[in-house]
Amino acid sequence: MANWKNLDTLASFKELSNAKKVDLPQVMSGDGGAQRVKNYTVPMAANMSYNYAAKAVDDDILKKLCDLAAEAELSDKFAELYNGEVINTGEKRLVLHQLTRGQLGNDVMADGVNKREFYKNEQKRIADFADRVHSGQIANAKGEKFTTVVQIGIGGSDLGPRAMYLALEGWARKNGKFLMEAKFISNVDPDDATAVLEQIDVEHSLFILVSKSGTTLETLTNQSFVMDALRKKGLDPARHMIAVTSETSPLAKSDDYLEAFFMDDFIGGRYSSTSGVGGAVLSLAFGPQVFADFLDGAAAADRTATEKDPMKNPAMLDALIGFYERNILGYPATAVLPYSQALSRFPAHLQQLDMESNGKSVNRFGEPIDYVTGPIIFGEPGTNGQHSFYQLLHQGTDIIPLQFVGFKNSQFDNDVIIEDSTSQKKLCANVAAQIVAFACGKDDENPNKKFNGGRPSSIIIGQELTPASLGALLSHFENKVMFQGFIWNVNSFDQEGVQLGKVLAKRVLAHDTDGALAEYAKIFEI
Amino acid sequence: MANWKNLDTLASFKELSNAKKVDLPQVMSGDGGAQRVKNYTVPMAANMSYNYAAKAVDDDILKKLCDLAAEAELSDKFAELYNGEVINTGEKRLVLHQLTRGQLGNDVMADGVNKREFYKNEQKRIADFADRVHSGQIANAKGEKFTTVVQIGIGGSDLGPRAMYLALEGWARKNGKFLMEAKFISNVDPDDATAVLEQIDVEHSLFILVSKSGTTLETLTNQSFVMDALRKKGLDPARHMIAVTSETSPLAKSDDYLEAFFMDDFIGGRYSSTSGVGGAVLSLAFGPQVFADFLDGAAAADRTATEKDPMKNPAMLDALIGFYERNILGYPATAVLPYSQALSRFPAHLQQLDMESNGKSVNRFGEPIDYVTGPIIFGEPGTNGQHSFYQLLHQGTDIIPLQFVGFKNSQFDNDVIIEDSTSQKKLCANVAAQIVAFACGKDDENPNKKFNGGRPSSIIIGQELTPASLGALLSHFENKVMFQGFIWNVNSFDQEGVQLGKVLAKRVLAHDTDGALAEYAKIFEI
Repeated sequence: MANWKNLDTLASFKELSNAKKVDLPQVMSGDGGAQRVKNYTVPMAANMSYNYAAKAVDDDILKKLCDLAAEAELSDKFAELYNGEVINTGEKRLVLHQLTRGQLGNDVMADGVNKREFYKNEQKRIADFADRVHSGQIANAKGEKFTTVVQIGIGGSDLGPRAMYLALEGWARKNGKFLMEAKFISNVDPDDATAVLEQIDVEHSLFILVSKSGTTLETLTNQSFVMDALRKKGLDPARHMIAVTSETSPLAKSDDYLEAFFMDDFIGGRYSSTSGVGGAVLSLAFGPQVFADFLDGAAAADRTATEKDPMKNPAMLDALIGFYERNILGYPATAVLPYSQALSRFPAHLQQLDMESNGKSVNRFGEPIDYVTGPIIFGEPGTNGQHSFYQLLHQGTDIIPLQFVGFKNSQFDNDVIIEDSTSQKKLCANVAAQIVAFACGKDDENPNKKFNGGRPSSIIIGQELTPASLGALLSHFENKVMFQGFIWNVNSFDQEGVQLGKVLAKRVLAHDTDGALAEYAKIFEI
Repeated sequence: MANWKNLDTLASFKELSNAKKVDLPQVMSGDGGAQRVKNYTVPMAANMSYNYAAKAVDDDILKKLCDLAAEAELSDKFAELYNGEVINTGEKRLVLHQLTRGQLGNDVMADGVNKREFYKNEQKRIADFADRVHSGQIANAKGEKFTTVVQIGIGGSDLGPRAMYLALEGWARKNGKFLMEAKFISNVDPDDATAVLEQIDVEHSLFILVSKSGTTLETLTNQSFVMDALRKKGLDPARHMIAVTSETSPLAKSDDYLEAFFMDDFIGGRYSSTSGVGGAVLSLAFGPQVFADFLDGAAAADRTATEKDPMKNPAMLDALIGFYERNILGYPATAVLPYSQALSRFPAHLQQLDMESNGKSVNRFGEPIDYVTGPIIFGEPGTNGQHSFYQLLHQGTDIIPLQFVGFKNSQFDNDVIIEDSTSQKKLCANVAAQIVAFACGKDDENPNKKFNGGRPSSIIIGQELTPASLGALLSHFENKVMFQGFIWNVNSFDQEGVQLGKVLAKRVLAHDTDGALAEYAKIFEI
């Protein structure tokens, strides 16, 4: 069994605090900078690489980070996780999302079944169902094919699957895999469901209700919304709706659905894109093979994450450098900046993944801790961000570490040459330029035009955003967040912080309030 | 003339630093909390209000903030701005976006014309053009009506107009004002333009090229992209394209456009939604009267911002409290959390508005400053965020001030009753609950379920998100950011931080690189 210790009890943490800091503008300049770009890179799954040349680390700090990885027993803890230990201590649950896409260690038995087989079987059931929808075997009451799929879910049942769908939509169109359009309804705001219902052809739409517990207020409310809309058009909701839920939920055996697919309590919402939560919508939209390729990419990245040497393990190295920036250099945030329009909602997914996992103030035993944990995560695609908040990133008073993502090729492979270069080359040139601009800065006699530099960044570079590389990217960040949770000794798999608001909202709706809450309820005329 | 002084030279700043801090959980509890909710509110334009009961201020701190507003001469500086002084010192320009929607002070003459008349005239020209498109007088080569409008622009030519369009789309559909669908192309990523072109009926689409200078690389590249697509379909691009630019730009008199509409150097990109940059797309999508109502809402909020007493001036008060949180309490970020799905991209607009305006390390005279300026701005709509990053907001190790927005009524007025309440009531109950949960927290013997509270928030409350209230909301934040710029003594209207990346990207494309930049260019095969 691994030793779970607070970060500030580790000798290697004190060593790191005392290590000489790196002068980033200096080390990234000249030939030394070129050498760093060549050397400070580690291969990732799906033919990608993680380049950390522009991070404020050097061989000494990297060595000490490796020492910390060893002292914190990061690899052992990961092994315990994928071998089925109770890693989610707060909720006393296993953490098995990696099993939805492969098996890294022992068979994991729970609920009386082999969980890997269980997840594989659900994937197969979804694949069969999707094939029958695509062939028209499953159709609407008139026997017409479904053309649109609408996911009803919130949080992890929305952000991840939506980001993945948007990431692959262009690729699928280009490669003849665009089988059904997908839409998403998440917010309890009635305008969300209404706007989606206005845009779609309800008669040819299949709805996926996603709720692990089967009790998520927003999702059940939106289900009623949709059922009403179907009935108003003379349609039978039960012919237009499937469920993704747990076997123990009230939805599991309901007649309200054409079919139900299952996940379980060992798949956290924010880690559920590779389960049926992402599987149903992606298999329907793009076909089961695309979803299978996506899982293969994620599984390959998981295998890379089992590498014990952090210098060969991009997720672990990314985690270590991020921890160093947060706890030693004291930076409060990280910006995620994909140079790919298809990844427009990937930062919103990572925002949940990271902030909900590691935004904690107690350790995994429920004891208060004395160091900072998860940073703020935000971001938008480049080059758009360059014309927006990059001003602050370059010249603001705070330093914000950056995480770039870029691909050599576009998805559609449809391009124009303007001023001797394609748009794709311009896109890549921009991200390369930004890395160096942030790291090295530029002197100027006019302080308003001066760039101090010293703003660290890393970049993940891939050939093209495909199902496999997207899966690897998703898994990379899941594993990064997991390793950081290990470093901070927090439970990255519960979310007690969402409970209080729910309780108070129920009290407002039950008119059971006093004090400030009663006054706010009055203002809103509740 | 106002005195432009650095924040740390103000006596009132030192007074504030020494003021007793507020214990938020304590003051927001019980009857005192109820009183705060009733008292700590100030009316806004368009029948909205700004409630700051859950901010960590009390009468003593508010008094000192008012002293600072007076010492920093915030009202006088605003008056100088709208009366046409050179407030954008770096670029030696006037700052006139308020004139696009009203006139607060003297006539402003520049470029030999009365600028208010100039902006009004452009608005009228756009209105006439939109009317002729809607009537079919301006049509495609076959004489068929245009059904879709596509804005090609980046940064302020994209984020603000896109956020405004999404904010009003549902309202317009409900109220019979949805005349044309709008799409947006921004990123130089070729997949962005390709994806939009795949989705639209190009033959019935009208494109708006938006670039003040007429030289924005991304925008001109995307224009070529679109022109190619039009020609491939046998269409004449000049019959499908209009320009919004400055009179001195190369686009102004080009035969490539059906028509050109003008703004000028006194309208910063991020402040341009009320100029032709937002005006063309919004007038085409929803009709000129909707755009006029939006401007009226913005103008009303501008008038409120001229109020000298901060306690009656919501934009100034919001600015002062935000400054207090940033410079006295030391919080690095602010989350913007609209409880309205229609405002899904409003946080991205505010992110640009705020971070590009005040992410500066020199004062308006170009001298380095010794205090922090603009915070990180990020956000997503509620209730979605509650199932995502709110975990960190509630229980993370850092405190992040929050800015809620909520409306009593939905836009579509289409709702369902589940468990005795409508979705809209659930939405409102949730935001009310969150304010109190963040402020007061909740004790628990299990530290994992404990909420420390003390997490400050404000809320802007409106009746419904309409053109007028949206305009007022936009203007509120523009003026807030402006007042904060005055407090920090920075120039909120230039953006030198975007230049270095542009220069280096050009060097990459010209193969004029060495060191680290050359290596990155190699990796991307440029």
